[in-house]
Amino acid sequence: FDPKLSYMAPISIFRGYYLKKSEPRIETLSFCMTLDEDMNYDCLLLQNLHKWVAVESDSVQPQTRQEVIRMIDIAAENLQALGADVTLDNASFQQLFDGQHIPLPPVILAKLGKDPLKPTVCFYGHVDVMPAKREDGWKTDPYTLTEIDGNLYGRGTTDNKGPILAWIHAVTAFKALSIDLPVNIKFIIEGMEEAGSIGLEEIIERENERFFSDVDYIVISDNLWLTTKKPALTYGTRGNACFSVEVEGGEKDLHSGGVGGIVHEPMSDLIALLDSLVNASGHILIPGIYDDVAPLTEEEKKLYDTIEFDLQEHKVNIGVKNFIYNTKEDILLHTWRFPSLSIHGIEGAFYEPGIKTVIPSRVIGKFSIRQVPHMNLSTVERQVKEYLEDVFSKRNSTNKLRVSMKMGAMPWLANINEPQYKAAKKAIQRVFKKDPDMIRDGSTIPIAQILQDKTKKSVMMFPIGAADDGEHSQKEKISRHNYISGTKVFASFLLEISKVHKESQGDSN
Amino acid sequence: FDPKLSYMAPISIFRGYYLKKSEPRIETLSFCMTLDEDMNYDCLLLQNLHKWVAVESDSVQPQTRQEVIRMIDIAAENLQALGADVTLDNASFQQLFDGQHIPLPPVILAKLGKDPLKPTVCFYGHVDVMPAKREDGWKTDPYTLTEIDGNLYGRGTTDNKGPILAWIHAVTAFKALSIDLPVNIKFIIEGMEEAGSIGLEEIIERENERFFSDVDYIVISDNLWLTTKKPALTYGTRGNACFSVEVEGGEKDLHSGGVGGIVHEPMSDLIALLDSLVNASGHILIPGIYDDVAPLTEEEKKLYDTIEFDLQEHKVNIGVKNFIYNTKEDILLHTWRFPSLSIHGIEGAFYEPGIKTVIPSRVIGKFSIRQVPHMNLSTVERQVKEYLEDVFSKRNSTNKLRVSMKMGAMPWLANINEPQYKAAKKAIQRVFKKDPDMIRDGSTIPIAQILQDKTKKSVMMFPIGAADDGEHSQKEKISRHNYISGTKVFASFLLEISKVHKESQGDSN
Repeated sequence: FDPKLSYMAPISIFRGYYLKKSEPRIETLSFCMTLDEDMNYDCLLLQNLHKWVAVESDSVQPQTRQEVIRMIDIAAENLQALGADVTLDNASFQQLFDGQHIPLPPVILAKLGKDPLKPTVCFYGHVDVMPAKREDGWKTDPYTLTEIDGNLYGRGTTDNKGPILAWIHAVTAFKALSIDLPVNIKFIIEGMEEAGSIGLEEIIERENERFFSDVDYIVISDNLWLTTKKPALTYGTRGNACFSVEVEGGEKDLHSGGVGGIVHEPMSDLIALLDSLVNASGHILIPGIYDDVAPLTEEEKKLYDTIEFDLQEHKVNIGVKNFIYNTKEDILLHTWRFPSLSIHGIEGAFYEPGIKTVIPSRVIGKFSIRQVPHMNLSTVERQVKEYLEDVFSKRNSTNKLRVSMKMGAMPWLANINEPQYKAAKKAIQRVFKKDPDMIRDGSTIPIAQILQDKTKKSVMMFPIGAADDGEHSQKEKISRHNYISGTKVFASFLLEISKVHKESQGDSN
Repeated sequence: FDPKLSYMAPISIFRGYYLKKSEPRIETLSFCMTLDEDMNYDCLLLQNLHKWVAVESDSVQPQTRQEVIRMIDIAAENLQALGADVTLDNASFQQLFDGQHIPLPPVILAKLGKDPLKPTVCFYGHVDVMPAKREDGWKTDPYTLTEIDGNLYGRGTTDNKGPILAWIHAVTAFKALSIDLPVNIKFIIEGMEEAGSIGLEEIIERENERFFSDVDYIVISDNLWLTTKKPALTYGTRGNACFSVEVEGGEKDLHSGGVGGIVHEPMSDLIALLDSLVNASGHILIPGIYDDVAPLTEEEKKLYDTIEFDLQEHKVNIGVKNFIYNTKEDILLHTWRFPSLSIHGIEGAFYEPGIKTVIPSRVIGKFSIRQVPHMNLSTVERQVKEYLEDVFSKRNSTNKLRVSMKMGAMPWLANINEPQYKAAKKAIQRVFKKDPDMIRDGSTIPIAQILQDKTKKSVMMFPIGAADDGEHSQKEKISRHNYISGTKVFASFLLEISKVHKESQGDSN
C-alpha cells in the first residue's frame, strides 16, 4: 500500500475538472460530476476496494481476528495518508464461549482539521465483514473483487468497505485538488460490527466529552436504498424487544401415553400464550401496546407519496406471493413505523423431523416486538408481562410461568429538518438528479440509536448501496455506478453541509 | 450354558413339594407356593437371569446386533432344553439410515405339546433391550445382575428377560416334576421390540394360518402393575394417531425487522392452529372427536372402585405437583379410556437457546391423539383435517396448510370375561392372596393390538413387574419377590387355564 499513490491518484480520475481554486463555491464545484464511470479497472478507486476486499476481516470467527486487526491498520494508514490525526483506541479482550480471551481490534478515531468556524462531520463505518467462503455458494471468490455486468462482487463491497472508501475518496479529492476541506472531518471506524460492535458503546461513552465534544453531525453509510435505482436517506429504524416465555411443568419430560390427559401440559399453555399475542393480520393484541405509537402526521404521510416502491418487486425479493396489505403506503408504514410482533420458535420442545410422543416439561417461547417511537421499552416490558400473566391465570394451569425481556434495543428516529438532511438532499439532487426517498428501516440498527443517545448529536444514515446489494449474502456487491457516485455524493455533501450549517447558524442567531 | 442343568435345577428349589403325581389337580398343586424366596443366589432361577442380563442384546444400536442374535440363540437353547420344537424364523434385513443393511435377528417360534384335548397358550416376549451404559448414570453395571435390598438390578430384568424366564421356569417346573403340562404351549420370542418390532407383523401375518392356527390364548407379559404391591391384569391400551400440521409461507426464512408486520407469518398461523386443538383442562376441541368414545358402563365403572392407586405416589413418580383431576377414578379414566391430545413440538422454527429474530418460512407442528375404543382412525383423521382446515380458512392467511396423519396405531381392548382373564385372576388369588387390579395402559402397546387384530385370538397382558421397575431407565430392576412369584403365578395360570378353558368349552357345548 502506497499512501502517496493513494493521495495523488484521484487527480487522474477527475478528468475535465475545472475550478477556480480561489473560490471553492458549491456552484462551481462540478468536479465530482466528472468522475468517469468507465475508468480503467486499475484506477485507484477500484484498486483500493480490491485491496480492502482482499482482507478476510471476518469478525465473527475468532480465527480471522488477526485479519480484522490488519484491516484496521490498513484503514488507519489510508486516513493518515489523508493527513488525519489517527488514534487507535485499543479496546480490551473478547471472551469466547470456550473461556478463551482474544484481542478486540482497536477502534480508529481520526481527525482532519479543527477550524472552529467550520462544522465538524463525523463518519462512522466498520471494516469487518460477515464470514464468507467460496463453498458457501459464491460464484466468485469472495475476497477477490470481481466485476460482472457493472457490479463489483466481493465480501464487504457494500457492507461496509465500499462506503468507507467512497467517503475517504471524497476527502482525498479535496486534498488532491488542493481545495480546503469545507468542514472538519472525524472518523470512527470499528472492526467488530458484524459481531455486535463489542466494546464500541463503552468507547463512545468514554469519548463523549472528548472526541465527540465538537462534532456537529454524525453520518453512517451502512444500509441500503429502498430500491435499486433511487437514492435514499434514512431517518429512523424500529427497535427490538425480545421476550422469552417459559412454562414449566414437572421435573422431567413425560410420555404422552402414560400421562396425556391428566396433567396440564406446558406446551398447551405456551401455545395459548403465544396465540394470545397477535392476530391473523399482524395486529398485536397486548392491551395498551399501541398507546405510545407516535401519531402519523400529515407531513409524515406526504413523505410516503413520493417514495418509489414496487410491491411486486418487493414480493419477488423476499420470496412471498402475498402481503397483508395492498398499498405501497400500508406496506411501508407497517414495515417502518408501526410495531410488529413475530414468534420465532420454541426451545425445549421436540423440533426434529419425525415423531416423538413427548410431553416436554419445560418450554420457552421466543417472540419479539419491533417497537417504534415513542414506545418505551420498560412500558412494553410491563405490558407484555402483565398481559401474559393475565392470560395464563385465566387458564388455571398448575404450571409455572416466567416472562422476561431478554434484549431491548430502542428505535431510532432523526429529525429530517436538521441541516445535514437538507445538505444530503441537495448533494443527492446534484449527483443523481433526483430527490432521495426519505426512508426508515424496519430492522434495528443499534449504532444509530447508540450514537444519537450517547452523544446527543444529529445522526443521519446516508446509504449509497442499492436494494439488491445482498449484504451478508453469497452475492454481495456494489455497483460500479453506486460506488463511484458515492464518492461524488459524499464530496458534494461536504460542500453542502458547510453551507447549510452556516445558514442554520445564521437562522439561530 | 448347560441345558441339562437348566432342566433339572428347578427341582432343587421346589422344596417341601408334595403332590400325588397321578392326580395333578389344581387343589393339590401347592408346589408353586413353596418356592423359596430366600433361595441361594446361585440357584438356577437367578443364574439364568444373570446369564441373560449379561448379554448386551441392545436392538437399537446396530453395533450390538450380533449380541441380539446371540441372545435369541440362548433363548432358543433354553426352549429346546424344555423339549420344545424350536424354529428360528429368519427375518430379512434392516436398512439403516446410512443405507447399510444389517441382519434382523431371527424370531423364535416354539411349540411344546400338541394334544388336541388341551388348550394352546402362546406366550409372546422379547429378549432385546434398550441401550444401557454404565456412564448413563447406572449405579451398578447394567449387564451384571446385582441384588440390592431385594431388588435385582440390570438392563432387561423386567423388560422383558425376567418375565420370559419366569414363564420358561414355570414350564420347567412341570417338566422337572414330571407332571404333564396341562396345556399345549407356544412361544413367539422376538429380538427387535425396542426398535419397533421390525419385521414381526409380517411374520405374524404369514404364520396366521400355521403357527397361530391352533392357538387359543395369547399372553404378553411386557408391562407393569399399576402399583408396587398389587398384581394387575391389563385388558386395554390407548391407540396413537400422530399428526403433522405444516404451514408454509414464502421461499425462505425472513428477518423480523425487514418484513415483520407485512407478511402472514407461518408461525402465527401454526400457533393458532395448535391452540385450537385442546383447552386448558385437556378437553379436545375437535368437533365430533368424542362421538365414538365407548360409553362408560356401570360394570366398567365398578372395576375402578377396587383399584388401589395412590394419587400422591403417582405424582411423585412422574414428578408433577398437580393433576387436572382430583379423584382416583378421574385420573385413571383420563389416563386409560378417554382420549387425550398432546402437542409435542415444532419443526422448522428456532429451537436453540438465545435469540434469533427469524420469521421461519415453513413450520411443522407435531401433535398426537391417544384414541380409545371405538374411535376409528380414519374418522379421527378426517375430523382433524376438516377442523384444522376450517380454523385456517377463517384466518384468511395466504400461507399454505398441509395436515397429515403420519402414524396411526389402534387402541386395544380385550374382553375381561374371556377364560384366560378368569384363569389369571384365579392364579393371582392363589399366589398373591388378592384380586388383581383390572387395568389398562394409557400408552400404545402395538403388539397386543397387532396380535389380536391379525390372529383374532384372545390376547391378555399379564404383568409380573411392579410399577417402580423403571423400564428403560438407569435403575431397571425386578424384585426378587416378583421374579419368583412370576414363576409361581405363571405355573398356576397354566393349571387354571386348562380348567377354565374346559368349563368354557362345556358352557358353549
